Amino acid sequence: MNDLILKRLSAFRALMAEAGVKAVIVPQADPHQGEYLAPHWQVRRWLSGFTGSAGDLVVTSSKAALWTDSRYFLQAAAQLDGTTVELMKDGLADTPSIAQYLCQNLQAGDTVALDGMLFNAASVDALKKALAEKDISLITDFDVIDRIWLDRPALPDGKIFVHDIRYAGKEAREKIAEILADAAAKGAADVFMAMLDDIAWTLNIRCNDVNHTPVATAFLYLSEAHKVLFIDPAKLTPETSAYLAEQGVSTMSYTSVKKYLSAIPTGTKVLVDASHTAMQLLDILGVKAVDGGISAAARLKSVKNPVQLEGVSNAMLRDGVAMVRSLIEIERRIADGIATTEIDISEILRRHRSEGDLYFDESFGTIAGYGPHGAIVHYEATPETNATLQPQGLLLIDSGAQYLDGTTDITRTIALGTPTAQEKADFTLVMKGHIALAKAIFPAGTRGAQLTVLAHQYLWKNGLNYLHGTGHGVGHFLSVHEGPHSIRLNYVDAPMLPGSITSNEPGLYRENIHGIRCENLVLCRHEMTTEFGEFLGFETLTLCPFDRSLFDTSLMSDEEIAWVDSYHRTVAERLTPFLSDDERQWLQIHTQPLTK
Amino acid sequence: MNDLILKRLSAFRALMAEAGVKAVIVPQADPHQGEYLAPHWQVRRWLSGFTGSAGDLVVTSSKAALWTDSRYFLQAAAQLDGTTVELMKDGLADTPSIAQYLCQNLQAGDTVALDGMLFNAASVDALKKALAEKDISLITDFDVIDRIWLDRPALPDGKIFVHDIRYAGKEAREKIAEILADAAAKGAADVFMAMLDDIAWTLNIRCNDVNHTPVATAFLYLSEAHKVLFIDPAKLTPETSAYLAEQGVSTMSYTSVKKYLSAIPTGTKVLVDASHTAMQLLDILGVKAVDGGISAAARLKSVKNPVQLEGVSNAMLRDGVAMVRSLIEIERRIADGIATTEIDISEILRRHRSEGDLYFDESFGTIAGYGPHGAIVHYEATPETNATLQPQGLLLIDSGAQYLDGTTDITRTIALGTPTAQEKADFTLVMKGHIALAKAIFPAGTRGAQLTVLAHQYLWKNGLNYLHGTGHGVGHFLSVHEGPHSIRLNYVDAPMLPGSITSNEPGLYRENIHGIRCENLVLCRHEMTTEFGEFLGFETLTLCPFDRSLFDTSLMSDEEIAWVDSYHRTVAERLTPFLSDDERQWLQIHTQPLTK
Repeated sequence: MNDLILKRLSAFRALMAEAGVKAVIVPQADPHQGEYLAPHWQVRRWLSGFTGSAGDLVVTSSKAALWTDSRYFLQAAAQLDGTTVELMKDGLADTPSIAQYLCQNLQAGDTVALDGMLFNAASVDALKKALAEKDISLITDFDVIDRIWLDRPALPDGKIFVHDIRYAGKEAREKIAEILADAAAKGAADVFMAMLDDIAWTLNIRCNDVNHTPVATAFLYLSEAHKVLFIDPAKLTPETSAYLAEQGVSTMSYTSVKKYLSAIPTGTKVLVDASHTAMQLLDILGVKAVDGGISAAARLKSVKNPVQLEGVSNAMLRDGVAMVRSLIEIERRIADGIATTEIDISEILRRHRSEGDLYFDESFGTIAGYGPHGAIVHYEATPETNATLQPQGLLLIDSGAQYLDGTTDITRTIALGTPTAQEKADFTLVMKGHIALAKAIFPAGTRGAQLTVLAHQYLWKNGLNYLHGTGHGVGHFLSVHEGPHSIRLNYVDAPMLPGSITSNEPGLYRENIHGIRCENLVLCRHEMTTEFGEFLGFETLTLCPFDRSLFDTSLMSDEEIAWVDSYHRTVAERLTPFLSDDERQWLQIHTQPLTK
Repeated sequence: MNDLILKRLSAFRALMAEAGVKAVIVPQADPHQGEYLAPHWQVRRWLSGFTGSAGDLVVTSSKAALWTDSRYFLQAAAQLDGTTVELMKDGLADTPSIAQYLCQNLQAGDTVALDGMLFNAASVDALKKALAEKDISLITDFDVIDRIWLDRPALPDGKIFVHDIRYAGKEAREKIAEILADAAAKGAADVFMAMLDDIAWTLNIRCNDVNHTPVATAFLYLSEAHKVLFIDPAKLTPETSAYLAEQGVSTMSYTSVKKYLSAIPTGTKVLVDASHTAMQLLDILGVKAVDGGISAAARLKSVKNPVQLEGVSNAMLRDGVAMVRSLIEIERRIADGIATTEIDISEILRRHRSEGDLYFDESFGTIAGYGPHGAIVHYEATPETNATLQPQGLLLIDSGAQYLDGTTDITRTIALGTPTAQEKADFTLVMKGHIALAKAIFPAGTRGAQLTVLAHQYLWKNGLNYLHGTGHGVGHFLSVHEGPHSIRLNYVDAPMLPGSITSNEPGLYRENIHGIRCENLVLCRHEMTTEFGEFLGFETLTLCPFDRSLFDTSLMSDEEIAWVDSYHRTVAERLTPFLSDDERQWLQIHTQPLTK
């Protein structure tokens, strides 16, 4: 048995009993509704032992269960072993929802509790309604973990720093003016923001509160008269305080946000993105809150300005050089028979990237999956799983960096030996979809859900598929996953906008055999205007060769081959000036035209 | 001036004044929320003079305005000329909504009125809310037209008839059982249905109440104990009454539905599709109504059973023969210099179709658009516009039939002379999209919005587009436009289901030049099951050659040419047995392989 987790659950249940609560929902969430959490908010991980990035825990007086999705079924099953926490497989037909589970396991008159700072209002409302049908009540201010998690990491206290205008390209006060103008058009004079990347973008500030995503833990309230950043004073320096003051922004302590919101005068209209605002905070605003849906900051920050785009273009050069150097090193080690593991791959990539100018961090933990590990979509090698590469099979490498002038995200799949016909066919079908999306032209207003079939179509024709999205938005020295747009089967009502950056990453995963993913970042741009309106297209930004040995050109059209050759020419032209003679030679060989 | 319309509006305003109403909304709608209306419900047409199939009229004490979409801008402008009714172009950025228009033109304290039998509850709620902001109230039982429309057509009194089980393939009582089982799964014991095609399908009854769509005006209430069809007794015969009784269905008068719904016992749960139920009826049900979204009947009837599919396959043979004979006749008339107009084309098609077995009616008014007329998407030739064909340019023919064993819908675009390079390029780009969709393979669960780009992609690459949907569901001896699925950019949350029939009809419209549309009906079918799940595809059902002279094979891939050749082989094989020697020879020539 996992005694540590059992003890933690037992202590937690004692607090539940003391409060007269029969069940508690502990989500993977913070008060900012973001995807990545600071260690302080990893309560679900601490209490269950499950370390995945998605999953909600329910603890009742006698049972516990954890809901997570298919990416994590194997990992969760292993980590929950011996904890008495039952794995609930999200997305399977016979898996109950959390509300159903609570109704099944509790009695009429019982009470369920949660911390309303960690849920948005809509999800709490839905839960409350479902529980009410069985006469179960819901408490929304249950926040007791500090009493038993004695070494809980403090709220992050790293210093914020200014994202220089020569990279950000637009002053904070200009962005604030645009956000307030947008709110006015929606009938609200004020704006309340909780999303960390929205706030970092708006104020041109960055920090290291969250691993790989350079945001600061804060809230932001904007009105004509007052722009208030709610942030731990320990995170400020005289310089950053002066900078904020210069941009018209004052600061108050992070914990004073509730009091501040309570004091907003009656009649004020405060624009919020309700689905990204904590239920408790929305409750405080009450009728003053106006839900504007996707925030202006999210929409505005998705469209990169010319300074940002120039920065990204430069970052791509540095990232491409680091990738080429890494690929050369990996190739040589395999050829020379030097033992190399998946974890070594991550270190090789980090080393080469960190030697580039303006490097700040990785943009996420590198996924280096060799052979069957490549088929685990969110694989991250651990000392226990760490495979040693052999001169055969496929290696999938998904990695990226945070540079001050841009964020990168690239996946290459390479053959470590002579590829089999199956490996080549699989790779080529993925690339055909990648190419079709890269070449797409579409009317302004098109949504990603309307484009994704271009990337899926050749796999589908062969009874193959991948279940992750085809493309996610990418921040600028911010989150590597950014909205509001995306390219995926699920419909998201946000059009592809010129100036936005998106990944193009179809894949194919054969369980226990191999995984393939081919990912470049693409820039959405104006293509033409005709009598039928404006048409947009993509410009590929990422600069790194695909593995030529993996193309089965008999499966490709002339246009597809021409696209690969043209892309490789561009990669060679752009990267060559930054390479040594040896590296240049390697790149020249690896960007030769494909042969039919 | 158009005195007739002015007089009608004046009389209508007198009734408004008498009721103390400052504005009335007169929609294009009946109490069944269908697309096609019986003459009795053509109030908006009578009052405004505009004959289009979509458009809502607002009459205030001093003004009137009509909202319609881009298909009808030209027609509405012409028909509203001299009526004082202002044309409001729906979909343009500076066109106010009806609610905005009312708020602009009315004063606080004023009253707006409408007939709540002609609107669903959601639209009335939204309107009420918008008007309340300006302190304008809304009356929802304004139904006075009978007092001034003295020769208003009566409610349709045609006799219903039974759709024979050898065509329908499933007994009404079985369908009723399935619908009640679906309701039970949704927590409702009873079901109320208002959609005419849902009711006709459920009970295997047909009628001629609506032009080209063989439905009967009725409501249907289902419970374990009672199955009640609300229908004008004049529409019944001893035979049809006996048939209904045999299926466990009793009848009550059409007008008694409100009283019946009022008497449903408290505590009963009645499943409805709220967006297709009149607001007044939903109001009567109140908390008894459970909104189940898309009705079970709509979903079940979209999936055709084996008997229906065999019928459709036979109907396609007859329809293909009629199309071939029509195309031959048109070609000969042009070659022989016999004066032929667009209206003649409709008559030629109707004549050849009506000679086929089991022919009942056209499935919609034929669109025969010559040259520039082809670019008007919903063009229907009138004596005033009726163009005479010349041995040049393109002719677009969109037509279909109601056979007892199936409904057809086909569009062919043919060159009347030697086509120009532009005509061929345009046609070929449309066909490339048609072919890509016809060949698509996709996972079970895919929505039409996820597929439509396949049909658009080649046009988009050339800065071209069409703004209508790519595919609509098709009924079985029922409405030629049927839900719930469709293939179009707008997201509709209904998956493509095996057994459903959909049109595949991309197009291209160059204003004042020509219109192109290429339409076949396709059957969604199981394609394969792999480790990645079930995959579906399409089987093309329609049998009629495309105009070989319009293909520019230099723009086509080998696979695309092979698809056309294979399709033409199938057309020749299937239709030949039913043709005369002359016709057979014509078809052989017109289905020869394309030459590169």
